[in-house]
Amino acid sequence: MKPINKLSIQDEIIGFYLLKELNMRQTNGTPPKDYFDIVLADASGQISAKYWDVTVQDKETFLPMQLVKIQGTVLSYRDQPQVKISRIRKATEEDGVSLTDYVRAAPIRPVDLVHTINLTVNEIREPQIRSIVQYCVTKVEEKLMHYPAAKTYHHAYYAGLAYHIVRMLEIGDFICKQRPFLNPDLIKAGIILHDIAKPEEMIAQMGVVTDYSNHGKLIGHIALASNWIVEAAISLDIPLESEVVLGLQHLVLSHHNLGEWGSPVQPQTAEAVALHHIDNLDAKLQMVEDALDTTIETEPWTPMIRGLDNKAIYRLKV
Amino acid sequence: MKPINKLSIQDEIIGFYLLKELNMRQTNGTPPKDYFDIVLADASGQISAKYWDVTVQDKETFLPMQLVKIQGTVLSYRDQPQVKISRIRKATEEDGVSLTDYVRAAPIRPVDLVHTINLTVNEIREPQIRSIVQYCVTKVEEKLMHYPAAKTYHHAYYAGLAYHIVRMLEIGDFICKQRPFLNPDLIKAGIILHDIAKPEEMIAQMGVVTDYSNHGKLIGHIALASNWIVEAAISLDIPLESEVVLGLQHLVLSHHNLGEWGSPVQPQTAEAVALHHIDNLDAKLQMVEDALDTTIETEPWTPMIRGLDNKAIYRLKV
Amino acid sequence: MKPINKLSIQDEIIGFYLLKELNMRQTNGTPPKDYFDIVLADASGQISAKYWDVTVQDKETFLPMQLVKIQGTVLSYRDQPQVKISRIRKATEEDGVSLTDYVRAAPIRPVDLVHTINLTVNEIREPQIRSIVQYCVTKVEEKLMHYPAAKTYHHAYYAGLAYHIVRMLEIGDFICKQRPFLNPDLIKAGIILHDIAKPEEMIAQMGVVTDYSNHGKLIGHIALASNWIVEAAISLDIPLESEVVLGLQHLVLSHHNLGEWGSPVQPQTAEAVALHHIDNLDAKLQMVEDALDTTIETEPWTPMIRGLDNKAIYRLKV
Amino acid sequence: MKPINKLSIQDEIIGFYLLKELNMRQTNGTPPKDYFDIVLADASGQISAKYWDVTVQDKETFLPMQLVKIQGTVLSYRDQPQVKISRIRKATEEDGVSLTDYVRAAPIRPVDLVHTINLTVNEIREPQIRSIVQYCVTKVEEKLMHYPAAKTYHHAYYAGLAYHIVRMLEIGDFICKQRPFLNPDLIKAGIILHDIAKPEEMIAQMGVVTDYSNHGKLIGHIALASNWIVEAAISLDIPLESEVVLGLQHLVLSHHNLGEWGSPVQPQTAEAVALHHIDNLDAKLQMVEDALDTTIETEPWTPMIRGLDNKAIYRLKV
Amino acid sequence: MKPINKLSIQDEIIGFYLLKELNMRQTNGTPPKDYFDIVLADASGQISAKYWDVTVQDKETFLPMQLVKIQGTVLSYRDQPQVKISRIRKATEEDGVSLTDYVRAAPIRPVDLVHTINLTVNEIREPQIRSIVQYCVTKVEEKLMHYPAAKTYHHAYYAGLAYHIVRMLEIGDFICKQRPFLNPDLIKAGIILHDIAKPEEMIAQMGVVTDYSNHGKLIGHIALASNWIVEAAISLDIPLESEVVLGLQHLVLSHHNLGEWGSPVQPQTAEAVALHHIDNLDAKLQMVEDALDTTIETEPWTPMIRGLDNKAIYRLKV
Amino acid sequence: MKPINKLSIQDEIIGFYLLKELNMRQTNGTPPKDYFDIVLADASGQISAKYWDVTVQDKETFLPMQLVKIQGTVLSYRDQPQVKISRIRKATEEDGVSLTDYVRAAPIRPVDLVHTINLTVNEIREPQIRSIVQYCVTKVEEKLMHYPAAKTYHHAYYAGLAYHIVRMLEIGDFICKQRPFLNPDLIKAGIILHDIAKPEEMIAQMGVVTDYSNHGKLIGHIALASNWIVEAAISLDIPLESEVVLGLQHLVLSHHNLGEWGSPVQPQTAEAVALHHIDNLDAKLQMVEDALDTTIETEPWTPMIRGLDNKAIYRLKV
Repeated sequence: MKPINKLSIQDEIIGFYLLKELNMRQTNGTPPKDYFDIVLADASGQISAKYWDVTVQDKETFLPMQLVKIQGTVLSYRDQPQVKISRIRKATEEDGVSLTDYVRAAPIRPVDLVHTINLTVNEIREPQIRSIVQYCVTKVEEKLMHYPAAKTYHHAYYAGLAYHIVRMLEIGDFICKQRPFLNPDLIKAGIILHDIAKPEEMIAQMGVVTDYSNHGKLIGHIALASNWIVEAAISLDIPLESEVVLGLQHLVLSHHNLGEWGSPVQPQTAEAVALHHIDNLDAKLQMVEDALDTTIETEPWTPMIRGLDNKAIYRLKV
Repeated sequence: MKPINKLSIQDEIIGFYLLKELNMRQTNGTPPKDYFDIVLADASGQISAKYWDVTVQDKETFLPMQLVKIQGTVLSYRDQPQVKISRIRKATEEDGVSLTDYVRAAPIRPVDLVHTINLTVNEIREPQIRSIVQYCVTKVEEKLMHYPAAKTYHHAYYAGLAYHIVRMLEIGDFICKQRPFLNPDLIKAGIILHDIAKPEEMIAQMGVVTDYSNHGKLIGHIALASNWIVEAAISLDIPLESEVVLGLQHLVLSHHNLGEWGSPVQPQTAEAVALHHIDNLDAKLQMVEDALDTTIETEPWTPMIRGLDNKAIYRLKV
Repeated sequence: MKPINKLSIQDEIIGFYLLKELNMRQTNGTPPKDYFDIVLADASGQISAKYWDVTVQDKETFLPMQLVKIQGTVLSYRDQPQVKISRIRKATEEDGVSLTDYVRAAPIRPVDLVHTINLTVNEIREPQIRSIVQYCVTKVEEKLMHYPAAKTYHHAYYAGLAYHIVRMLEIGDFICKQRPFLNPDLIKAGIILHDIAKPEEMIAQMGVVTDYSNHGKLIGHIALASNWIVEAAISLDIPLESEVVLGLQHLVLSHHNLGEWGSPVQPQTAEAVALHHIDNLDAKLQMVEDALDTTIETEPWTPMIRGLDNKAIYRLKV
Repeated sequence: MKPINKLSIQDEIIGFYLLKELNMRQTNGTPPKDYFDIVLADASGQISAKYWDVTVQDKETFLPMQLVKIQGTVLSYRDQPQVKISRIRKATEEDGVSLTDYVRAAPIRPVDLVHTINLTVNEIREPQIRSIVQYCVTKVEEKLMHYPAAKTYHHAYYAGLAYHIVRMLEIGDFICKQRPFLNPDLIKAGIILHDIAKPEEMIAQMGVVTDYSNHGKLIGHIALASNWIVEAAISLDIPLESEVVLGLQHLVLSHHNLGEWGSPVQPQTAEAVALHHIDNLDAKLQMVEDALDTTIETEPWTPMIRGLDNKAIYRLKV
Repeated sequence: MKPINKLSIQDEIIGFYLLKELNMRQTNGTPPKDYFDIVLADASGQISAKYWDVTVQDKETFLPMQLVKIQGTVLSYRDQPQVKISRIRKATEEDGVSLTDYVRAAPIRPVDLVHTINLTVNEIREPQIRSIVQYCVTKVEEKLMHYPAAKTYHHAYYAGLAYHIVRMLEIGDFICKQRPFLNPDLIKAGIILHDIAKPEEMIAQMGVVTDYSNHGKLIGHIALASNWIVEAAISLDIPLESEVVLGLQHLVLSHHNLGEWGSPVQPQTAEAVALHHIDNLDAKLQMVEDALDTTIETEPWTPMIRGLDNKAIYRLKV
Repeated sequence: MKPINKLSIQDEIIGFYLLKELNMRQTNGTPPKDYFDIVLADASGQISAKYWDVTVQDKETFLPMQLVKIQGTVLSYRDQPQVKISRIRKATEEDGVSLTDYVRAAPIRPVDLVHTINLTVNEIREPQIRSIVQYCVTKVEEKLMHYPAAKTYHHAYYAGLAYHIVRMLEIGDFICKQRPFLNPDLIKAGIILHDIAKPEEMIAQMGVVTDYSNHGKLIGHIALASNWIVEAAISLDIPLESEVVLGLQHLVLSHHNLGEWGSPVQPQTAEAVALHHIDNLDAKLQMVEDALDTTIETEPWTPMIRGLDNKAIYRLKV
């Protein structure tokens, strides 16, 4: 069974896929007939699909985020590949397939990612910083096991958020060694806290963001994380006016760098400047890597990438 | 004694003024001589001044924000009026002058402004909203008696912040009557809380902002007020996830409307949209009123106003 | 008969509606068949609809802006509700339905709105200002009875323009009382004149703008209103160089505040600053109120609102 | 006597100059002494100057825009040349010098420029267009003999406005021949009318703009010219709704192209698009030519030019 | 046979057209059926079309950029005209039609355009400039015979690039006569070189750009032309540091004027300022002329023009 | 002898300093007297200074970029420290001081920096890439020993450019190990080439940029480096159309990321995206580090940093 990112037009397919999106539509014909407008996914990518002969029973059988077995053909529709499904059934226990094998995921196991994050928390030497970071990680530890880092921009897959944090910690570690004037405790804390409230901002299932929460829209993950630092400090009896709380809130509030990108203040400590650029470097390179990975290998150009000003990436033959 | 905003070039002046700013400089001559570079103020406005013959004793005698008696002449220096001081002495108890008579102030007594704010807090019907607003007002009640609303933009005078709040409450009250779909409790709360952390953001004395605080620069009054709502809710046992906390934080966080003006989220409740526009209406009209008040009456145009895109205001003769 | 803003998916509907838009299309089938692509409206809102079995007679029978009786079902098409019409006929005299009951309209009777505007004109004390405003109102008095204030942004319904003016007059009246330095004659005149040429800029029928006029596109309502003031002054023998004409033209020309929003000059009189902010406050709050009114009540969020930077509004449960 | 644009540091000068600006200042010394802060000008350029030993009589003798005879030295002050005046007296009738020889002026005689403009008006074939243009030219004919086209940006000298119009007419004539789809009457009319109200917008003397008028600030030359077209049409009994009035107003209103450059509408006729680009081409090339002319010939770079995004121009040695 | 820009809804058509675009699609029906989604073109314009009854043979017969004979009807689909094709066959030799008669083309023969360009090259007096320009023209001489100047913005037709150059040369010639301070050699060279690398940036066939090349996307025509000047200079033994190379590279690099429009440096020589404005004037007026030409003559407004900020052009009836 | 960044107001100083800038001015007194307006520097920072009693001999003795021995006092002038020099003489051989000890420099010896760069060139495995990079480095090898990376923004000191390259190489090396999809040869080449033409763009002496060159202003370092790649390829017989030349030119041309920052194309290869972000990370962190280093240690805030949107950096006390 070919992974989705290896499919070509005219391929006949048969195998298991995830119903990542499923909508019931009606044809324009007379009488109109029901059909399913589907997004199929596996760990390698996703593809749109149509199933035309929907029965009453089908409507009750199939739901989004289920595993199904599909038979069909890859056609070209408006210059994009699309699967025309001829047969479809739900996967059963006997099939021995597991949902987690069919969602796109970070290349490292979630449990290892969260373990690394927890280890790093313990390496923070300043006890107040360590305990505030600990408090915030604990609030979302379970969600860190599977939440993506964003809806579409970057690390938009299973455990993408934890993967983003871990990769940034690697870069942060290197930069602190290269530039000893940076405080490694603040760099570690800033990296772990900067997007820590994303699981509160977004509603996600199996690594897929389906919507933003009301708190996400009205407060945003930046101010939510700032709230949590206040909460932590009060609970841990750390004065709100202390330099520790000031420094951690500043890291979180300023990490998007500019007002128009959502930061109410701009980076004004050495570590805040570093945090923004480490975040940017990791996010942008991951967008590139993911676009190259999920584009059919024989294509010289990836699709346009929204987070890179809608630029596509060229595979240089050097 | 003419108030400062009535002075003309060539006027001889004698009277009491506030040393709003005082800096020691040296002339370019050989040998260089010390002189004072001064900003004189009274309740009607301010004017720059020079005192050339500074003695060793003078340097120890005069400090900023003191009342002094001045004799001098109004000259024109680079097209701006400037007082050349010939005699200066500190005001004494016998002079019977009071500092508060010489600083620019809101046209309503601070005690009455704060009283109005407190009355309004008590009119809020929803008890959780009322108690959170009460908590935050209490934190700054003393400073509300004298803090300006801004360093230069608008209401930059003694008790300017409280005056801004009270005038906005009047507009808010009218708008709620005109448009019953708005929730008056949220409008009142939003108006009182929106700039409530400004006294923490700025360092001010007698209505004059001398600098921004570290917290002001690194967190900003918007996120600080958001912090206080968290603090209040925790202290009052109101759940942080409740719609009340969500609504109040949203009002505060969104009241600058755009990211580039410092709001991490944009207004997305009816009352948040109203709050932004009431704030804007009051601030802009006050800038105009203050500019007209402090410009010499025979001048058809005020100076350029920074908060109005550097436009000046014309006194239409209608 | 449920109003449109109360409909839900799967509802069977039967009743009278306005054919707000009607376009003939053809299916993709072989042979292609004609069908109607329709927007149905009533006073509460609007909904898209399809009528599939169009006969030759139907094509000659149905025209936009007619009242029809419909039988059909509310389906979901691309996540938006859409009526599939099974039966349709034109409304007849016997049905006793009136077009004016089916168009969205200001909540106050047009005759009362125009009466209020005329009363206010008479309250203007300065005779030249009064007579210029009178002249301009007379030019569009009939259209004021039904024109909307805009194509889509705000007050886009029957008599929306007059309603916008009247509500602004209420706010202006309050602000003049709160701030006596403002000239009430200029505030009244500015509010009445600021959008007075909109009926010349747009082509509207029953409160629905179908297009912009050539004059609207090439001159725009701002310069058109400025033209009318010149015309009025010449006709009334008021010198074009007078402060009255200067002041009124400035109010009209500057009321969009910024060049990129269409104002060739920026507000530079106290009343021009006030006018812009009163206009903005009324327009933005009306967008919010209209969006909340026309969104199904059980929905927590309105659709995105173009005039509010594409933000949606949340119904806070406080 | 060297023209100003040929002076070098250390030059001793003696000759007649215009007192383009003259301000009385006081030194910082004790006692402060009066001195004159001066801008000297001749037809080739201008230079700042100081006269230190001002007597009581001098203060009454010298006024701006007078011709004087100067003796002095060119020194370097803050990297800019500055004349230290040792002797100064007013020019007398016997000196036989004329003010007009000492102001910067268009390279063609004003009377010839205005003659060309009038000839062109008569070449307009469509009688209504011709008569409206005639009406507007007549309003400012006298000022066309000497007004500059702008305060600083371009053609900022004696008869600069008429020169700008005439040069644009030459380009317009060429473009109409090259592209016969353009209407030459509208091109001629647009070029003559586009800046026709500038003499009402600015206050100028001998080609030097000293300020903007109240009408200039509050209405602007674009809307003023639009007013004049209305006035002309009424006086000539041409209907305001006619295509001629529409077309001429559109040309004037749109000629700055963008809202942020002051045009309330954007060019939407062929001739309006042409007008904007002809205006831009002439203005920008004139800025370059003037900068090269007034820069000392041995300098490879001109000063920065405000109207060219603060770029300087390089004299390529090709 | 009516040209495409004269067609109206309901016209029956029969005649030869170019298959400018051809895509195979499938209907939504069950079973889905193949159809062709087509863009038909002739020298006067283009129109979308559908052919529903595609046979297996048809799929192998028809290819883009072929001439075909069509029978069909002009219908209205989503407010746009669309041809429903009933019969289609390939043109044969006997039909006596030539592809070149059916593509939109410059109004002057390519051979004449290229001849004019070559003549102009020879008129350049400075030998190094002449030889560098010659070198670059030679690189693309063949492509100059048919390449368009852009994908959609302006001169997007057969030999559009050469036509753009020739028209600019006419304007440049006039401007150099009007303003002798400009160097005609540099103006000529700048005009010929400014877009000389466009044929390397784009992939075009018969005047239609189908895509950008890899070099076009990654280097761009501005830097490519700059490369060619280096190449030419090396090959001609002209020092890279010479003023000639400096001046020519500067002309090419700066001709888009602003960084956001693709120029890494801004115009800083007189000729570079002129070049940008001549380019702009010609491109914008050609967009207008082409839009007016290709819009049905009875329509008062053209469609929106992307390169004119999405403004449409009005045919003034003067 | 205190280093400049340790000085306080009122300090008496005596010691050797560099005359980084020296300008002759005249006092406003009568008669005006000559004085020197000076910037003194040492390896730790710089400070403005005045020397009042300039003799005729002094004017011929002192030149910029000389070492001098100074005696003086640190005063406060307009809130900035300024040295009033009482005695000054040129340093002599006997003083045993060396210019290189008094200019700000990279913390690593230039010879070691250039050695590292050369080693890295040799590590590039792809021979064409290696030889092109080698060619370009050779062109500026001598200047790499001392050129700064910018006039003011970042690494504005002796050997700052080589230091910037070496630090970026360290980051690039780490990132290539962390993300094996990146091509290390291209990363190395991109880092070495991206600013390689800066020594041609700027005129610098002892690490201080005094001006931009004509080539710098009219071509810019980005297009200059692109030129050099063409030159190298021609000289090395590498085809200009090859992917190697395409890839290297793209890296250089796109490294400023946006058009408004000077890049004619945006990053569209994985390595180009990486290069931009590595450059940005290194430059911004170096600005922060340099600002902290050169600010008096007892100050909690650095001065505003131009390259960081004019933000200052706070020394958090954690």
